[in-house]
Amino acid sequence: MSEPEISLDIDRLQRQGFPEVVYGKGKTIEQITFAMRRLYETHGHALATGIDDGAFFHIQTAIPNADHDSRSGICWIGKMSPTSDQHTVAVICAGTADLPTAEQAALTLEYLGYTVSRLRDVGVAGIHRLITRLDEVDKSQVIIVVAGMEGALASVIGGLARQPIIAVPTSVGYGTGLGGLAALMSMLNSCAAGMTVVNIDNGFGAAVAAHRILSCLKNLKGT
Amino acid sequence: MSEPEISLDIDRLQRQGFPEVVYGKGKTIEQITFAMRRLYETHGHALATGIDDGAFFHIQTAIPNADHDSRSGICWIGKMSPTSDQHTVAVICAGTADLPTAEQAALTLEYLGYTVSRLRDVGVAGIHRLITRLDEVDKSQVIIVVAGMEGALASVIGGLARQPIIAVPTSVGYGTGLGGLAALMSMLNSCAAGMTVVNIDNGFGAAVAAHRILSCLKNLKGT
Amino acid sequence: MSEPEISLDIDRLQRQGFPEVVYGKGKTIEQITFAMRRLYETHGHALATGIDDGAFFHIQTAIPNADHDSRSGICWIGKMSPTSDQHTVAVICAGTADLPTAEQAALTLEYLGYTVSRLRDVGVAGIHRLITRLDEVDKSQVIIVVAGMEGALASVIGGLARQPIIAVPTSVGYGTGLGGLAALMSMLNSCAAGMTVVNIDNGFGAAVAAHRILSCLKNLKGT
Amino acid sequence: MSEPEISLDIDRLQRQGFPEVVYGKGKTIEQITFAMRRLYETHGHALATGIDDGAFFHIQTAIPNADHDSRSGICWIGKMSPTSDQHTVAVICAGTADLPTAEQAALTLEYLGYTVSRLRDVGVAGIHRLITRLDEVDKSQVIIVVAGMEGALASVIGGLARQPIIAVPTSVGYGTGLGGLAALMSMLNSCAAGMTVVNIDNGFGAAVAAHRILSCLKNLKGT
Amino acid sequence: MSEPEISLDIDRLQRQGFPEVVYGKGKTIEQITFAMRRLYETHGHALATGIDDGAFFHIQTAIPNADHDSRSGICWIGKMSPTSDQHTVAVICAGTADLPTAEQAALTLEYLGYTVSRLRDVGVAGIHRLITRLDEVDKSQVIIVVAGMEGALASVIGGLARQPIIAVPTSVGYGTGLGGLAALMSMLNSCAAGMTVVNIDNGFGAAVAAHRILSCLKNLKGT
Amino acid sequence: MSEPEISLDIDRLQRQGFPEVVYGKGKTIEQITFAMRRLYETHGHALATGIDDGAFFHIQTAIPNADHDSRSGICWIGKMSPTSDQHTVAVICAGTADLPTAEQAALTLEYLGYTVSRLRDVGVAGIHRLITRLDEVDKSQVIIVVAGMEGALASVIGGLARQPIIAVPTSVGYGTGLGGLAALMSMLNSCAAGMTVVNIDNGFGAAVAAHRILSCLKNLKGT
Amino acid sequence: MSEPEISLDIDRLQRQGFPEVVYGKGKTIEQITFAMRRLYETHGHALATGIDDGAFFHIQTAIPNADHDSRSGICWIGKMSPTSDQHTVAVICAGTADLPTAEQAALTLEYLGYTVSRLRDVGVAGIHRLITRLDEVDKSQVIIVVAGMEGALASVIGGLARQPIIAVPTSVGYGTGLGGLAALMSMLNSCAAGMTVVNIDNGFGAAVAAHRILSCLKNLKGT
Amino acid sequence: MSEPEISLDIDRLQRQGFPEVVYGKGKTIEQITFAMRRLYETHGHALATGIDDGAFFHIQTAIPNADHDSRSGICWIGKMSPTSDQHTVAVICAGTADLPTAEQAALTLEYLGYTVSRLRDVGVAGIHRLITRLDEVDKSQVIIVVAGMEGALASVIGGLARQPIIAVPTSVGYGTGLGGLAALMSMLNSCAAGMTVVNIDNGFGAAVAAHRILSCLKNLKGT
Repeated sequence: MSEPEISLDIDRLQRQGFPEVVYGKGKTIEQITFAMRRLYETHGHALATGIDDGAFFHIQTAIPNADHDSRSGICWIGKMSPTSDQHTVAVICAGTADLPTAEQAALTLEYLGYTVSRLRDVGVAGIHRLITRLDEVDKSQVIIVVAGMEGALASVIGGLARQPIIAVPTSVGYGTGLGGLAALMSMLNSCAAGMTVVNIDNGFGAAVAAHRILSCLKNLKGT
Repeated sequence: MSEPEISLDIDRLQRQGFPEVVYGKGKTIEQITFAMRRLYETHGHALATGIDDGAFFHIQTAIPNADHDSRSGICWIGKMSPTSDQHTVAVICAGTADLPTAEQAALTLEYLGYTVSRLRDVGVAGIHRLITRLDEVDKSQVIIVVAGMEGALASVIGGLARQPIIAVPTSVGYGTGLGGLAALMSMLNSCAAGMTVVNIDNGFGAAVAAHRILSCLKNLKGT
Repeated sequence: MSEPEISLDIDRLQRQGFPEVVYGKGKTIEQITFAMRRLYETHGHALATGIDDGAFFHIQTAIPNADHDSRSGICWIGKMSPTSDQHTVAVICAGTADLPTAEQAALTLEYLGYTVSRLRDVGVAGIHRLITRLDEVDKSQVIIVVAGMEGALASVIGGLARQPIIAVPTSVGYGTGLGGLAALMSMLNSCAAGMTVVNIDNGFGAAVAAHRILSCLKNLKGT
Repeated sequence: MSEPEISLDIDRLQRQGFPEVVYGKGKTIEQITFAMRRLYETHGHALATGIDDGAFFHIQTAIPNADHDSRSGICWIGKMSPTSDQHTVAVICAGTADLPTAEQAALTLEYLGYTVSRLRDVGVAGIHRLITRLDEVDKSQVIIVVAGMEGALASVIGGLARQPIIAVPTSVGYGTGLGGLAALMSMLNSCAAGMTVVNIDNGFGAAVAAHRILSCLKNLKGT
Repeated sequence: MSEPEISLDIDRLQRQGFPEVVYGKGKTIEQITFAMRRLYETHGHALATGIDDGAFFHIQTAIPNADHDSRSGICWIGKMSPTSDQHTVAVICAGTADLPTAEQAALTLEYLGYTVSRLRDVGVAGIHRLITRLDEVDKSQVIIVVAGMEGALASVIGGLARQPIIAVPTSVGYGTGLGGLAALMSMLNSCAAGMTVVNIDNGFGAAVAAHRILSCLKNLKGT
Repeated sequence: MSEPEISLDIDRLQRQGFPEVVYGKGKTIEQITFAMRRLYETHGHALATGIDDGAFFHIQTAIPNADHDSRSGICWIGKMSPTSDQHTVAVICAGTADLPTAEQAALTLEYLGYTVSRLRDVGVAGIHRLITRLDEVDKSQVIIVVAGMEGALASVIGGLARQPIIAVPTSVGYGTGLGGLAALMSMLNSCAAGMTVVNIDNGFGAAVAAHRILSCLKNLKGT
Repeated sequence: MSEPEISLDIDRLQRQGFPEVVYGKGKTIEQITFAMRRLYETHGHALATGIDDGAFFHIQTAIPNADHDSRSGICWIGKMSPTSDQHTVAVICAGTADLPTAEQAALTLEYLGYTVSRLRDVGVAGIHRLITRLDEVDKSQVIIVVAGMEGALASVIGGLARQPIIAVPTSVGYGTGLGGLAALMSMLNSCAAGMTVVNIDNGFGAAVAAHRILSCLKNLKGT
Repeated sequence: MSEPEISLDIDRLQRQGFPEVVYGKGKTIEQITFAMRRLYETHGHALATGIDDGAFFHIQTAIPNADHDSRSGICWIGKMSPTSDQHTVAVICAGTADLPTAEQAALTLEYLGYTVSRLRDVGVAGIHRLITRLDEVDKSQVIIVVAGMEGALASVIGGLARQPIIAVPTSVGYGTGLGGLAALMSMLNSCAAGMTVVNIDNGFGAAVAAHRILSCLKNLKGT
């Protein structure tokens, strides 16, 4: 068969406010490249997650202006919207090992046109590092908290901030961390009210959730 | 001891944009009533969750203008903000048995001053019931989806709507439903991107998450 | 030992209406090849699951008319029945990553003599893709739904179709997907009544279940 | 509000081949009675699950020709189809404690118009009791196996019969039985191919699955 | 049989530094009373856990100087050591619902002769309440942190204090709290190093662990 | 350090009736070889589990009369007792993939001096294969049943035989098999009374359990 | 229907060496009494498990020579064999709360004709209590160890004794005890080789396992 | 970017009594080396966990006086305190396979300046090996017990010793060991009171917990 058997959801951009994104895991390199090219031809931009260096090599050969971040597996061609400094999302990260997931969120947000404020290494084992940087947090409209291990950082921020908070548990940890379940359960049971949670390591999903919030906001301001 | 040993977080309203709320489960009736009175005296309004009829009888004796919804266990005195029709939250509910959790969300939202649009009995076993009411959904700024069993309603709405979506799994079901874990896992793994999730039966938390979104929106519009 | 220590269940075809099938996982290449040859010599056809390219190379050397699908791991020699267009099974697949399991079902059905109608990329994130193809679904006697992630596709089809539905959860997903448990639990708790479920990634089992249904149907029509 | 807030799916009978059924758990007695009356007025018959003696007393006062089986919680008014002896479903039950779930299946099937062949106390601890009654099993078009504990009965029947087999795990057992999870996992992992499974204690769902099979069969015979 | 069949471990005080304690759950009132009397006669003091009001009524009839705290289920007769203000244990409690477990720890410590410093309602949803009371924490030799929900309080204290910290998860919470497992997993995976954990709701065990630490300390100071 | 840091339990043979056995997993090749040599020098025979081909190569270089079975990972030097045909253990195995665990049991039994009767490929999908060989089973004093997937074979044999039965779940299977947990739970919940169970894939443990039974028998016959 | 729908397995005594036993849980009082009477009439003796005081009152009215132990729920009429002092089973019990399960084993053994040696309150928290009574243990042919909490008693005895050991985990404990799963997992992973395990709280099953061992022994001695 | 993005918590030594330690898992070799150098330059000593041979090669090139233990993955430069024989910690280890985790604890303790008393191969399968060495245990101020499989060693020591006991479950085992969960649950449910537990394989955490105890002790002695 010459053409990969993929049927894209081209009008998703119209329906949901963001286009179909290529989920790279479980797809062949041919399928990924085909889908990226089709989305790029249709929308003038495209995004993929779960792209390793080998897959990117193939994509880049076919689509030279493709770009890639090795750590997070994000691959993008162009941008959905030009960067605007009107809306900022804070991506707060507990530890160095959580950076791949945090960058997955941050790069997706930048593809969608948002300004990202990155806070790193502010885990609760040294909570003063966080408290001295609360001003930066205050300037954002939406907060994404990325944390593995026991995920307590999300609760602490939930008690300090008034913005929408999207918590992303990561699979960082070992033993009873159970691949991120400990952090997830911690976040779902937070005593700080009004925090919401996405799947383990799902930085991409958190970015889209922030986009849903901020684009609903943009629509309302227009009225 | 004459006074219950409770230390309230009175400045939470200032810090987070909503006041401390009394979590009734595991507290004595005296502790609940004491906390409600203190919050009411401080803020002019108060909210509690997990209040059964017996506890409400005691609260009402002490604070006559307290109000209560038996099904959801929500008890409130006054309102934090007067109802505004500027912001509407759609609370969509899969089945009759999910109503207690849906009302927990809806009544909390009304206490916070929002208009609530209730959609009931629109589970995916008869998806046409949902599709014929999408106009109502479109008019809301935020969507809360409440569903037990397999929780598929959240994914379907996630694929149809562009607003922020907060999914609330409920403990409705039996056997492998595992007290709501099946619905929770379904929602966390949704193929519809950008949906966020709160704890099982946590209608209150979903309402506060919607409030975080809408008040961030209000702040921005003021600038 | 010159001959692998395998005792085949040769009269299963007579007893159950389909022959013993070689389950390749955990067997040596010699054991697989021996069993395929014995089944082929007895029945004039044979089927194996879990066959990778290396194992197939060895089988094909021994039995040149063996055939193989790399993605699904299905290996077959001849067919149990000639293809009939009297009975059609729809194999509906949520995403590209679910294709290996879907093809496991589809190729087993074709080996058993059924016509297969393949629907791909109709996941609930873009439900209109499914709704525009319901005519194809209506023409089948049995429906197999293959879905990973949250498996909501099965519930949606369960609410729209009247045929027997066999749901196959796949291990596609990550984090709380728990290797397919999220999809499985979603399917077992579906609010659409009368759906049945097989083990995670068990496309083969779903095909045999469809065969049990359709051959019971064939028997009745003969009476 | 004088009328319970329930929106029924009246055209489900047309769409799926069986009407909406009232799931009694989590509904008030008023909601159940209202729904039963509405369905009965629309279709001339109605079925409910999860009805205890107290709820039935209320239903019967409102709808005198309602009927009830205390053990299984099934309540019915009239029948969807008159009983036909053309199609028989065997409901096979491992032990006495599994009877409530078995009767849930059997009574639903009789409401749908099928003849039911009941086999009881044929658990694998005394497998000869089963083997001496295989003739009865052979006369059925579909087999429902109801078993708790380790659920091995399903595998044994799966190895002996050629019909479609729907396995229903029950919550009978203790300790590592985990409320039916042991039986469920046993059935999902059966080495007898082509068996399908429904949720724990879901006799109703198994009956509807059998109905999907047999009505697909009826349709084909008509052509 | 006139005498309950219980064999006490009378020399445990000598061997381990604290006496056998009566674990009330699963014992008859007669067995509990018999054991308390025997321990009291041997040591001049006795402690029991898991004693409800009914059991205490029976104990008090038999042993008039028995004492009881209804909330925590702790029952004691006399004290093992007179109260000393030389060693203080801080018992820090996240929320009102965690008080029964916190008091189980505090009362056991007081029975063992330690001064207890109680900090209540200092959960991370309002972390400033904790920070303003760090002086009190600093004056203790050992810290016991009692928290349900997501248990993040333990991590925050672990990052701020240098003393030994014993974390006690409680079963306070619902849904994914899983009866305390979320808090336990959070505490075991804390990014604050050197925290140790006991079983869910095991305030008694935490007190004995503190006693092991402080008596090792007393022994060393004597040398 | 020239000598591996291992302290052997040399008098275990005297105390428990069988010598210490080297558990190879997690030990270095040097540690394994050192321990085997020490045990062999002390007892005149030695046994190890979890030995792969690489480790065996090293052992055999040091101890030339060592022997090895690649599939099961059993390595032995000499025998604890000469083979006696007085006591026979039946090792019954559901499928080909269960053979490594079955051989672990069988070879350990042969090292201990028992006659082993091997029954293979008698899984319940074709139960007649088992029934025709019940005579062989009847001649054994102890039965070991080795089965993965749903482990139903153990229940069937438990209902047919009167001997002591030791069930060994194996990790053979996929998806909800959960690495052998499905088979384990099935065996623990068997409706056939008096069956006992060992850890997943623990053929060695089953053999020692059989030895405990048969040597207790030998002792009694001697009195 | 005047007669309960129960089909007994009357020839199980012949086939397995012990008769069918009535499992009381999930059966009506009428079904239990009917089954006890039938078994008693057939064999001259009968045993039931899971019988509470209410059910026993009904049984005793119908069958006056029935006997009952309230704590363990065992009910028996006569004995299968007269008590013999030739074979002794040691039933060792960690704590007072484990006694109901221990007595379930002990009374079943006495019904089967064995002498039982009961050791109580020998948990590992005071291991000297066990060590001083090892002589009693040595005189038994089979050992049953009953323990909840962490179940470590089984491992300790496994390291000290050479007899067959059947470990019975109990549901005694709380929190992470998970209803006996902690004790079960501890026993299955024991580093003392050759221990076997039955289901949580299954004292009856352990007794039958001991009977399988001892009757195989009796048969051999006869030869 | 030329400098790794790591923000170290330099004043942790002051605040908590021990410095930040580099957690090597999930960090790049560059990040680890950068952090080690920074900590070493600040404090004059540094410690890292999770360092394999490849990472150490790179570290040693950059910092020649770095040291490494291959088995435990501990890497250190200098020491935080000179070794003092005033305080001894006993590190007791059940089996050879538990040594990596035991050494992780022991080497961390030596880095912190404590004397370590190592007891190896004293698992409960041969409990006499432990009992003959209790004198060594008695001389320590704190006990760390490292055990996998069923972790019973911790309970046995808990019943024999009066010191603080920190139990470290290891992932040694297979099947139902579930990667250390069986040992963890065993330790959390120990019937020996006052034992505390850290995460699976967390020898480092246990060492820091011992340091918290012993430094609190040092502080008190100074007063």
